[in-house]
Amino acid sequence: MSEPTATLLISCPDQKGLVATFANFIYSNGGNIIHADQHTDFEAGLFLTRIEWQLKDFQLSRDMIAPAFAAIAKPMQAVWQIHFSDTIPRLAIWVTKQEHCLLDLLWRWQGKELHADIPILMSNHNDLQSVAEQFGLDFCHIPINKNNKIQQEARQLEVLRNYRIDLVVLAKYMQILTPEFISQFPKVINIHHSFLPAFAGAKPYHRAYERGVKIIGATAHYVTADLDEGPIIEQDVVRVSHRDTVADLIRKGKDLERVVLARAVRLHLQNRVLVYGNRTVVFA
Amino acid sequence: MSEPTATLLISCPDQKGLVATFANFIYSNGGNIIHADQHTDFEAGLFLTRIEWQLKDFQLSRDMIAPAFAAIAKPMQAVWQIHFSDTIPRLAIWVTKQEHCLLDLLWRWQGKELHADIPILMSNHNDLQSVAEQFGLDFCHIPINKNNKIQQEARQLEVLRNYRIDLVVLAKYMQILTPEFISQFPKVINIHHSFLPAFAGAKPYHRAYERGVKIIGATAHYVTADLDEGPIIEQDVVRVSHRDTVADLIRKGKDLERVVLARAVRLHLQNRVLVYGNRTVVFA
Amino acid sequence: MSEPTATLLISCPDQKGLVATFANFIYSNGGNIIHADQHTDFEAGLFLTRIEWQLKDFQLSRDMIAPAFAAIAKPMQAVWQIHFSDTIPRLAIWVTKQEHCLLDLLWRWQGKELHADIPILMSNHNDLQSVAEQFGLDFCHIPINKNNKIQQEARQLEVLRNYRIDLVVLAKYMQILTPEFISQFPKVINIHHSFLPAFAGAKPYHRAYERGVKIIGATAHYVTADLDEGPIIEQDVVRVSHRDTVADLIRKGKDLERVVLARAVRLHLQNRVLVYGNRTVVFA
Amino acid sequence: MSEPTATLLISCPDQKGLVATFANFIYSNGGNIIHADQHTDFEAGLFLTRIEWQLKDFQLSRDMIAPAFAAIAKPMQAVWQIHFSDTIPRLAIWVTKQEHCLLDLLWRWQGKELHADIPILMSNHNDLQSVAEQFGLDFCHIPINKNNKIQQEARQLEVLRNYRIDLVVLAKYMQILTPEFISQFPKVINIHHSFLPAFAGAKPYHRAYERGVKIIGATAHYVTADLDEGPIIEQDVVRVSHRDTVADLIRKGKDLERVVLARAVRLHLQNRVLVYGNRTVVFA
Repeated sequence: MSEPTATLLISCPDQKGLVATFANFIYSNGGNIIHADQHTDFEAGLFLTRIEWQLKDFQLSRDMIAPAFAAIAKPMQAVWQIHFSDTIPRLAIWVTKQEHCLLDLLWRWQGKELHADIPILMSNHNDLQSVAEQFGLDFCHIPINKNNKIQQEARQLEVLRNYRIDLVVLAKYMQILTPEFISQFPKVINIHHSFLPAFAGAKPYHRAYERGVKIIGATAHYVTADLDEGPIIEQDVVRVSHRDTVADLIRKGKDLERVVLARAVRLHLQNRVLVYGNRTVVFA
Repeated sequence: MSEPTATLLISCPDQKGLVATFANFIYSNGGNIIHADQHTDFEAGLFLTRIEWQLKDFQLSRDMIAPAFAAIAKPMQAVWQIHFSDTIPRLAIWVTKQEHCLLDLLWRWQGKELHADIPILMSNHNDLQSVAEQFGLDFCHIPINKNNKIQQEARQLEVLRNYRIDLVVLAKYMQILTPEFISQFPKVINIHHSFLPAFAGAKPYHRAYERGVKIIGATAHYVTADLDEGPIIEQDVVRVSHRDTVADLIRKGKDLERVVLARAVRLHLQNRVLVYGNRTVVFA
Repeated sequence: MSEPTATLLISCPDQKGLVATFANFIYSNGGNIIHADQHTDFEAGLFLTRIEWQLKDFQLSRDMIAPAFAAIAKPMQAVWQIHFSDTIPRLAIWVTKQEHCLLDLLWRWQGKELHADIPILMSNHNDLQSVAEQFGLDFCHIPINKNNKIQQEARQLEVLRNYRIDLVVLAKYMQILTPEFISQFPKVINIHHSFLPAFAGAKPYHRAYERGVKIIGATAHYVTADLDEGPIIEQDVVRVSHRDTVADLIRKGKDLERVVLARAVRLHLQNRVLVYGNRTVVFA
Repeated sequence: MSEPTATLLISCPDQKGLVATFANFIYSNGGNIIHADQHTDFEAGLFLTRIEWQLKDFQLSRDMIAPAFAAIAKPMQAVWQIHFSDTIPRLAIWVTKQEHCLLDLLWRWQGKELHADIPILMSNHNDLQSVAEQFGLDFCHIPINKNNKIQQEARQLEVLRNYRIDLVVLAKYMQILTPEFISQFPKVINIHHSFLPAFAGAKPYHRAYERGVKIIGATAHYVTADLDEGPIIEQDVVRVSHRDTVADLIRKGKDLERVVLARAVRLHLQNRVLVYGNRTVVFA
């Protein structure tokens, strides 16, 4: 599958002929569909689809695809994005002091599991600078305190612009982003160390221990202005028992966080996640 | 979703324009697609799809759909089936002495989870006759021994014909069907009490215990001439420990068998399972 | 394991010699320990243990065991219970209108998975009276409304006394018990149809759907004065996707509820659950 | 829990008084038991236990514990081991070319999850030499081919002796050890990339794909003379679908292999695994 492909992610009001119309657009221009999946939310009256086709022999040049599709999409009131598989997304990883999610992402990136460029590691501390160096990433240290958050977020945004970052991955970044930041840079994936909505907020493992749950979880979600309330991309869980102390929950949870975040980032990078309302369709 | 729908299950050699062609067939006749999913097996060069659409306002009468679609399918060398949601499949459950899978299926059937008619319970013993009576099913007792299997399978086939059965569910039927039977009645789902291909054959829980596995499973599959080798529809597992005796494995396994068989039967009845080679695509 | 056994469940402040002291009590009286498990909560400074031994050849008569052990337990400030395996607990199942958990418990009871007497089914509606009849249980219909709850709980308590009930199982009983009721009859197990503490309270599946979670769960817990806040005995989960409607979550959830409640009841009946604070030790 | 502890792992023919006898040995010498767990295999007539106690204030010197306990164990025909928590086991990791399990173990080791010294990485290739250097391990390259296996195993054994290795971890070491090697160095843990006994032997992911299973797994086990037949320590699984190619199975499987091997090594290092026959008791 190394030949370049194009992927459309579309959501529009449900109506007859959508599958045919979109498929005809590809076929009539000589494209070969290699993945097409759709979902209808009957309650919301919404049709959501992902179509991926091979660009080889496609008769529209890349520049022409968006305007040509726009003409089709407009009467259908469709909201859509187009992605090309050889346009590599640029990703910034943000951390605080914990390294497990960071190392896991970088290891997968090295192993070609994550189809992205990762030019920079950003942190409010400098504990993990050496990891950046080890993997050949730039490191940007922007300390945050109560008084400077607004100014520092301005600096963070500037760095994201300078590096032409498409996606920020919060790999255990222990600061809350302001709604203002999110309104300016809305493509952010976070890993929360609980099975949301259980234990939203601080110290989820301590609270899970106190509540005496028999299963703990982790949740990867897009960040919105409401803390821990954004659209969920992926979750997973692991069984615990009375023998597990808080330290054990943290240890077991780390393994969950690593894999759940990695899966979510990978799904996003493959353009398999479509957000609508506060929900996601994952075309897995 | 109570209005009648039609569902096409299609497999054909991969080629350009398949999604468009099939979708156009529905759309040009005024159908509204409510589910469409496809899968391409690039290695096998095979395109597999499931399309379901509402029959309301569809301009082809039911009788005309098959011939009209055949004209489209033939040049594509497509193999296909069509199903109408208000043609209720007729199902025979076969058991020996254990009742857990049987009761579970009948309870789901009563609760409208299984969209089927179940006119008859068949068994090589008569232990479960009272269950048939309780749920209003006919009961057919056909004892099997080494010497009479061929004749009794002829009787079984006759009963299936008389009752116009579409699907046989082996809900812990502890006899092996002959290849001859399967060649005459190939629509049979079995539940095997292990995580196939581990512990194929007899006494899987005893052998799982002896092997000291930490997880046990159950497998629902279509029956083929090779015992326990048919296409797998669904599997699930549960964790066990050194504390679990063979009796515990059997008890825990029963819960697996019930739910795995029920899921497989439900998927089949919704025409979500497409067999190719010895594999299944499950359009779930 | 059909010979009668005795089981001690003990919790006491952690101190040296506890395992030896308790084991010596059994051994010096000629008992053969067949299960002993312990847990130390170092944070709480608490030692918790379950010891089960064969009564055959035990030199203390049953009447003498409690006073003899009390003399040992007192200086250790131990809180303890003793149970004999041939004293069959008496269980009342409470339901409203849904039958899936009820049927599941009764099947397991018929199949000897649950070591209990179940003389009575109690309900605030009479929809499930026929199930009681089918399984040979008495049926007690006590309707509840806003105005009569206190009086009706008095009637419920009277029935529990008359039937000498040891444990009430709320198998989808959709009424909240008052703190007064719980203070008078504290042995109640409930099944909540979510992965607590997520979606405590009403309509958990609807809220899970709205939140867009990728996994749903069920929780069996002891009932306390605080709704959905009691000690958790068992939880389990199942994966869901964007394709699952609220109706699908309810259907998948039913399978979870059945098995989670059954496991919890079984663990309780085997005296494997020890509550301390708002947590449980499950000696599984 | 940083104070030193001693741990006894004992198996002996089941008989009355075992718990009391062992606990008395600890208590009468002033030890404080912090973990005690036991299991009786009634079929095998075997009692198996793990007892861990704090050495602080224990009245026997370390040298004296083994002889003193031997006197107790002998009449009971007990087989036993003693371990001290501050005697750090020495571990050699063996690899071929794949790094995922290796990196995972080394991260956990750096993060103090694995209580061991890891002085050396050994391999039949030199692809992963740089990883050894990065983590400060010696690297030993011993190439193997059909003709030199016996001589090379002699060299491997010599290295193990020189480095005083207690445990070899095969972290994707793609060579079969000879029975002679195992008889001389029996403490070896392997990760097999399937849910054993399914797909024992070579290319399990390819065979899992061909069989069309819906779940794949990984298995950590002690190595015995019979390939893939040794006592299982830990297993885990992940769901797959028709959409997963062999490459996807391999990718998903890597995550399983990492975590399953890490759990098994950790359990072993904590002296929580007791082998009997071809089975393990895991005192988790």
